[in-house]
Amino acid sequence: MRATLIYGAGDVRVEDVPDPRLRDPADAVVRVVRSCICGSDLWPYGAKPESGTGARIGHEFLGVVEETGSAVSELKAGDLVVAPFVWADNTCDFCTEGLQTSCRHGGMWGADGVDGGQGEAVRVPQAEGTLVKLPVGEDSALLPSLLTLSDVFPTGHHAAVKAGVNERTTVTVIGDGAVGLCAVLAAKRLGAERIILMGRHKDRTDLGREFGATDVVAERGEEGVEKVRELTGGDGTHRTLECVGLEQAMETALGVTRKGGTVSRVGAPQYEQVSLGFPVFFSNITVTGGVAPARAYIEELLPDVLEGKVEPGKVFDRTVELTDIPGGYQAMADREALKVLVRP
Amino acid sequence: MRATLIYGAGDVRVEDVPDPRLRDPADAVVRVVRSCICGSDLWPYGAKPESGTGARIGHEFLGVVEETGSAVSELKAGDLVVAPFVWADNTCDFCTEGLQTSCRHGGMWGADGVDGGQGEAVRVPQAEGTLVKLPVGEDSALLPSLLTLSDVFPTGHHAAVKAGVNERTTVTVIGDGAVGLCAVLAAKRLGAERIILMGRHKDRTDLGREFGATDVVAERGEEGVEKVRELTGGDGTHRTLECVGLEQAMETALGVTRKGGTVSRVGAPQYEQVSLGFPVFFSNITVTGGVAPARAYIEELLPDVLEGKVEPGKVFDRTVELTDIPGGYQAMADREALKVLVRP
Repeated sequence: MRATLIYGAGDVRVEDVPDPRLRDPADAVVRVVRSCICGSDLWPYGAKPESGTGARIGHEFLGVVEETGSAVSELKAGDLVVAPFVWADNTCDFCTEGLQTSCRHGGMWGADGVDGGQGEAVRVPQAEGTLVKLPVGEDSALLPSLLTLSDVFPTGHHAAVKAGVNERTTVTVIGDGAVGLCAVLAAKRLGAERIILMGRHKDRTDLGREFGATDVVAERGEEGVEKVRELTGGDGTHRTLECVGLEQAMETALGVTRKGGTVSRVGAPQYEQVSLGFPVFFSNITVTGGVAPARAYIEELLPDVLEGKVEPGKVFDRTVELTDIPGGYQAMADREALKVLVRP
Repeated sequence: MRATLIYGAGDVRVEDVPDPRLRDPADAVVRVVRSCICGSDLWPYGAKPESGTGARIGHEFLGVVEETGSAVSELKAGDLVVAPFVWADNTCDFCTEGLQTSCRHGGMWGADGVDGGQGEAVRVPQAEGTLVKLPVGEDSALLPSLLTLSDVFPTGHHAAVKAGVNERTTVTVIGDGAVGLCAVLAAKRLGAERIILMGRHKDRTDLGREFGATDVVAERGEEGVEKVRELTGGDGTHRTLECVGLEQAMETALGVTRKGGTVSRVGAPQYEQVSLGFPVFFSNITVTGGVAPARAYIEELLPDVLEGKVEPGKVFDRTVELTDIPGGYQAMADREALKVLVRP
């Protein structure tokens, strides 16, 4: 089959790789119907050292079960399923606590002999724990929104949940990428009374307004902090969802957060240190968040997607065939595309 | 009257200062019955640049109301009261949210014309909001424990509350100073199933065991982290209470915390940055805590102190007269005394 490999910065190729086969009784093989490119794929696309051997990439997909191992009883060939971006048994102590990203028997797509999601098919370890059945056909118009359950929508939701967003809270969302926009959608869904979106790409912030943002702040850095403070009577917001992953975004996040408030970060950190000295201590600001256990949230978010109450699939503004995926990466890196959907 | 002033590192003096008088209708004047020296007083005692003019110091005291302003109706001369370590109106939005340390009309003892607590008397601004009446006489044997309501016991309690300690959690407490020991006591009071105290002063960790520690780890740094992990099946504890304030203590805290867990810090930070890069992000570890709004907790903790269910006053292992307070500072700095009680 064909699958995507990354050889280094700017060097993504679609190549022939061995067809996936069942290896373990808990495995399933899934034919990919839709996958996509993640903002986090852009970090290696921007900086990975060149290597003679490519590495499989992609961690968001939905597809049709083709084959199941002998230990799999709740899934069968023909089922349409979505995969969260980390595979997990969904039965260990971490999983039952809702932290499937720390599953004792789980792992990442595209690593340790497991296929990446940007290909024609995937061997799914711990298939029963990992996959969630979707009650629609593979021609459903909902596929883009259902695909976001793999990562980007639960990641925005995780930011909002860990922050404690509810109807008594004001929220700042930092970043108008697909995660930021899904964080806006999640905050709105959880009832936030006010949602300030910090971003400067008008087409994106327009979608943010459609998702529920009440205010948009285009300024960055100190100027952006001042602007959010102006909008909130000088205090900042109760909750801040950091959806970028850069040091400056974390500084801004701390700067716009009200005393006693919470910064929840879901942007994969491209920094090592965060300034948490005396001012933050004296303000009793909490820093929470982390990699989103998407699996923990899929059942909760699925009904709203099926009923059309939320349409996170609107973050996809370009669709490419698998063979054209290198162009999809470049379009996202150039910010010509917000998020790219892939049809194998 | 006499009061304590700090002129610089190692230079604490008891001097004559003007007697406190009512200035504002919301003021009260309190004659100090007991005060004490805080671990945080040792930071300026260790490092404050020498100055020709001394600064008032001390922020923990209980005493008897001598006089009240015209706006004060719920307190009267003769009441025994305890003061939290930050004064506050207890009516603004931050106060009603339980964050009296961020009161819109509050402030610190010993600053901006307000007396410090280590003296014979104190003018208390926002007296009705700040002071809590104590239903005992000034000869009560409970005074040491009641005095801890000013700071050290609520600070340990704040660490435990912000961490989310309950009967389903295991806890590591970092630091065997008075705050750490009070954090042990607070975690025990909240039902923690296991409490590992990291500290290497046997007399202090013995008191920690009396307060509820189930294990003591004397090792520090990487070795200490390994030891806690050994004790917890490799996972670390759900909650970690950082009661020191040094960078290494924060690193240890992050190292001993279970995935999905929480580090709650109440040690006044002597660092600017905390390592919150990818490993912490991927582990979904939360960093919370901050300066403790003692006022928010006094009513909750008071009954247990009055009934003798908890005896946080055991952290006092030395008592000095006000004139001998310089020796008290030195004894704490030399770690000859855990916490020093002061009688004016």
